[in-house]
Amino acid sequence: MKITLLLVGKTAFPFVRDGMQMYERRILRHLSYSRTEIPDVKGTKSLSPSQVREKEGDEILKRIAEKDDVILLDERGDELSSLDWAKELEKKISSGGRNMVFVVGGAYGFSPKVYQRAGQKLSLSRMTLSHQLVRLFFAEQFYRALSIIYGEPYHNE
Amino acid sequence: MKITLLLVGKTAFPFVRDGMQMYERRILRHLSYSRTEIPDVKGTKSLSPSQVREKEGDEILKRIAEKDDVILLDERGDELSSLDWAKELEKKISSGGRNMVFVVGGAYGFSPKVYQRAGQKLSLSRMTLSHQLVRLFFAEQFYRALSIIYGEPYHNE
Repeated sequence: MKITLLLVGKTAFPFVRDGMQMYERRILRHLSYSRTEIPDVKGTKSLSPSQVREKEGDEILKRIAEKDDVILLDERGDELSSLDWAKELEKKISSGGRNMVFVVGGAYGFSPKVYQRAGQKLSLSRMTLSHQLVRLFFAEQFYRALSIIYGEPYHNE
Repeated sequence: MKITLLLVGKTAFPFVRDGMQMYERRILRHLSYSRTEIPDVKGTKSLSPSQVREKEGDEILKRIAEKDDVILLDERGDELSSLDWAKELEKKISSGGRNMVFVVGGAYGFSPKVYQRAGQKLSLSRMTLSHQLVRLFFAEQFYRALSIIYGEPYHNE
């Protein structure tokens, strides 16, 4: 089973890149994991938010295989505790199911087509995170979930 | 009105320090803000979690003035959207009220005395954030709230 983190837009801030690399090294101790960054759509200044979402959505869908389990990181998604999310992931991992693709959208969110393709929407916070910080937050939470699943001493309940 | 971010434990990761400095520079365009880091309590390995909380709690309370408005960053606190939090802060700022102290606890959370002193508990996420990441997350959210209040083009609703 492979895990992919699919991101719209490059990781612009050096501190986000540094932090992600730290958590990703830890994730890779447990699972096959990779990160794919979709370059920013060009000429967005002349486009409406919904046109940007459409263009970004096409780029997202191109990179998803038919059998992939697609999970959107989305403010309006399910809110879970770290422990409940770990339980959910554990079930999927232990059943050796489909590859999982976690998707972080651009500044304007996802197009309707991307929502249709998704199996789940997951919210990390009721607050709006910058699309830079959300990737860092995801990497830490995903590592935290793995530390719970594999019994590493990282998470204090 | 002064804003203080009071943190238990040093900012250990360079990427967290770098990220916080970026958001703090932006916060300082709008408000008087400072960060205070309480050194880690020594010899905690021989102490129970509740003893660590007590010791850390005493250090927190020492640094709070009688009139301060104390807000704890706490998993079990109120969850607000960025917009609702901005509205709440705007009321406090425009009334020119008491100084605000936001407190991020250590790995084991807060002591009962600290809970008693607090005026509000605020949760940034239902997920458990590391006490390193929570400070970075707070700095970004606080800057985001100010950008909403002062009409800077940062937050897309």
